[in-house]
Amino acid sequence: MKINVLFSPLGADELSFTGRTTIVIDVLRASSTIVAALSNGAREVVPVATVEFAVKVSGGMFGGQTLLGGERNTKKIEGFALGNSPLEYTPEVVTGKTIILYTTNGSKAIVKAKFSENLFVCSFLNLEVLANHLVKLDKDFEILCSGRNNYYSMEDSICAGKLVAEVQKLKEDVELSDSAKACIALNKSFGIDTLKMLKETEHGKILLENGFEEDLKFCSMLNISGIIPYFSANVLKVWQNSKEKQ
Amino acid sequence: MKINVLFSPLGADELSFTGRTTIVIDVLRASSTIVAALSNGAREVVPVATVEFAVKVSGGMFGGQTLLGGERNTKKIEGFALGNSPLEYTPEVVTGKTIILYTTNGSKAIVKAKFSENLFVCSFLNLEVLANHLVKLDKDFEILCSGRNNYYSMEDSICAGKLVAEVQKLKEDVELSDSAKACIALNKSFGIDTLKMLKETEHGKILLENGFEEDLKFCSMLNISGIIPYFSANVLKVWQNSKEKQ
Repeated sequence: MKINVLFSPLGADELSFTGRTTIVIDVLRASSTIVAALSNGAREVVPVATVEFAVKVSGGMFGGQTLLGGERNTKKIEGFALGNSPLEYTPEVVTGKTIILYTTNGSKAIVKAKFSENLFVCSFLNLEVLANHLVKLDKDFEILCSGRNNYYSMEDSICAGKLVAEVQKLKEDVELSDSAKACIALNKSFGIDTLKMLKETEHGKILLENGFEEDLKFCSMLNISGIIPYFSANVLKVWQNSKEKQ
Repeated sequence: MKINVLFSPLGADELSFTGRTTIVIDVLRASSTIVAALSNGAREVVPVATVEFAVKVSGGMFGGQTLLGGERNTKKIEGFALGNSPLEYTPEVVTGKTIILYTTNGSKAIVKAKFSENLFVCSFLNLEVLANHLVKLDKDFEILCSGRNNYYSMEDSICAGKLVAEVQKLKEDVELSDSAKACIALNKSFGIDTLKMLKETEHGKILLENGFEEDLKFCSMLNISGIIPYFSANVLKVWQNSKEKQ
């Protein structure tokens, strides 16, 4: 099994994902929010790459049971029901609903990787269950870090490192690319206290300045969910074999 | 002083370099070759982004004292006098010459950053003298890793980490981006034995397979040169204040 990590979606051609197994990570906050929404009973999450498309699909394609969620520059978008804080996606709000999600980095990365044969979403919240699944699947995979504004972000690479380390615990003969090796080492250096690490990243500091400390706390929690978001036919649903832990 | 690292030239817009101080790294092998050529008496190195342009400028712009150098997929290009092995750029071959250099990653990265106010080339061979100069210059800078085929390469990030660590030894109050912090940590994890590290990278393995073990040994040497290649008016020359150590 070969594992590679892309530090940003930039330059990765959409078609290059065809036939591959891809894991998208956006710890702050899209992938954490997607895991929270699906763990709390959302029917599905529709990641979109533009605000305009979010508004368009929310109109009627999903029978009116839709909620628009997302952010621009960390803030909720005017006219949207929800921002990009996972704490907003409570069972009361999301149960049975289709969430249309637009975010600056994460939702775009998922859309970019849409031609993948298998596309899963990973966060600190669900990496253990995903690692187990990837070992069973036994295919080469590529981790696509959403990064921040198309550049490297520390938190996504640490999450990638933890996922790879989990897979290595379960499987021998894992072949790592330079970037995958780097993520393992970065997780050893920075990943022991995930909340402390998040607070010291560029993106974490911006979220703190904007009052999202509780989001950092939530996003830093390890393996509180047994949900694997799986992308198929343009929507993210709970992978059938993932187990509810919450 | 703020320091950032870009893990690949991909997506970095040419104009975004305007007014900045940029350090280009391509350990295997363009930046090592440039340092070797200038250390061994080449008049200047002209980095180019296409083979066609290399052939065009070699014709007469530099008074006939030119040598074409470079590679495609590690191999010398047909009709070129030199490949991309720093060991070819001996005093006998390069003294007084203008080298037109085309390489898959490094020369393109330098051309991409051409609008920088200050543009220097770094390798393991010359990072100490460059760190000293950057501290005197006392400006924010960005390290542009050439990477491999537009993606992350371990060796460039380790070299970036060593450069940042050298600067930190000499100067307090250095502000590091996520990527710069990552490079410091990666250097601690992998940078102790630079030759061993190079042999285990993706690019290093390909060079070993193609018989370039001596190149890896040369490129892994720390601070054997006192030369700082500086880019101005489309050519790289020795920065006037750099000191010859060899």
